[in-house]
Amino acid sequence: MRILVVGATGTIGRAVCDALSPRHEVVRASRHRSALRVDIAQPDSIRALYQAMGRVDAVVSAAGEARFAPLSTLRDEDFAFSLANKLMGQVNLVRLGFDSVSDGGGFVLTSGVLARSPMPGSAAVSLVNAGLEGFARAAALEAPRGVRVNVVSPPWVTETLRALGMDPRPGLPAAQVAQTYVQAVEGRQTGEVLEPKKDSRPATRL
Amino acid sequence: MRILVVGATGTIGRAVCDALSPRHEVVRASRHRSALRVDIAQPDSIRALYQAMGRVDAVVSAAGEARFAPLSTLRDEDFAFSLANKLMGQVNLVRLGFDSVSDGGGFVLTSGVLARSPMPGSAAVSLVNAGLEGFARAAALEAPRGVRVNVVSPPWVTETLRALGMDPRPGLPAAQVAQTYVQAVEGRQTGEVLEPKKDSRPATRL
Repeated sequence: MRILVVGATGTIGRAVCDALSPRHEVVRASRHRSALRVDIAQPDSIRALYQAMGRVDAVVSAAGEARFAPLSTLRDEDFAFSLANKLMGQVNLVRLGFDSVSDGGGFVLTSGVLARSPMPGSAAVSLVNAGLEGFARAAALEAPRGVRVNVVSPPWVTETLRALGMDPRPGLPAAQVAQTYVQAVEGRQTGEVLEPKKDSRPATRL
Repeated sequence: MRILVVGATGTIGRAVCDALSPRHEVVRASRHRSALRVDIAQPDSIRALYQAMGRVDAVVSAAGEARFAPLSTLRDEDFAFSLANKLMGQVNLVRLGFDSVSDGGGFVLTSGVLARSPMPGSAAVSLVNAGLEGFARAAALEAPRGVRVNVVSPPWVTETLRALGMDPRPGLPAAQVAQTYVQAVEGRQTGEVLEPKKDSRPATRL
């Protein structure tokens, strides 16, 4: 399969590219550091990306930012940024990408655990993540030609917790999170929110 | 209690006002047809409303529109309208209203069944409803002075189905939906998404 990975240079995006590469042709896009550049907050940038890409079998998005801050300090601008970026950016990757995805191909978007399990500071992030999941469940019903739309809702990632100076033990390694993206790309499900879990097989327990 | 009902002239809003009135002082606001006018898509309009109101014990929102249309025909403008109206309109009722709500008071917002059970045409509505639920769960964690934030997710309403010329039998009467808003206003729960159900008591079964 020919797979576009948007957000290919992030912690999750890199792991997804690594996991897909052995079996698929992976085309990397990101805002600054990939050969293909895209700013998903700009619909014209998404249009240009798809025009440059031609036909693909799957689009994986591990891209999009949302603002994490105490609710009392989140400004109108923080909500607007979060909505335009992680939420509508990924919504538009789907809306503007249908014509570029082959029959039976698929989109895999990224929400996050804060959609269902919020914490102080997550008001905008939780809104964005939950809204994206609502969109994907609905969009899957109307996707043409058997195209599938799924969302991966990652838990806290070990590498991210470590980078933030937090206890990494509750996290899941990015490589393990990436396996859920691979399953969503290669599987037949649609309209689902997939939650990567700690692998229970002893051989790979970390 | 002194309760502000925003969207007081809609099918659900009217029923909520009727259900609250016997025990509480209800102040009605809506875009066109109430003494107090508010357009929740305009933050300044919300600010003016709260300034006119003074202190309240609860704010109920049964307001906000989102565009229902086939995904292939939903324009950028339809998503922008839906986000500014039913989603950020209600988010801003909370953000801008904290200072107006008394200790231990509460907000009750309105999402809808399409958040979790989408149908063709509901991509923007499902996004908005799910996003609002994500926001409310998170905002409840940071609300000051014991203020509560809950969402009612109504099913299809009998009167609405009838007005649309659809089979009203799967619907729940507005008066019954309104009881869930009353419970959210008078109860102690917070951060919850409340789903009105058909009343199973034989005496009131319809």
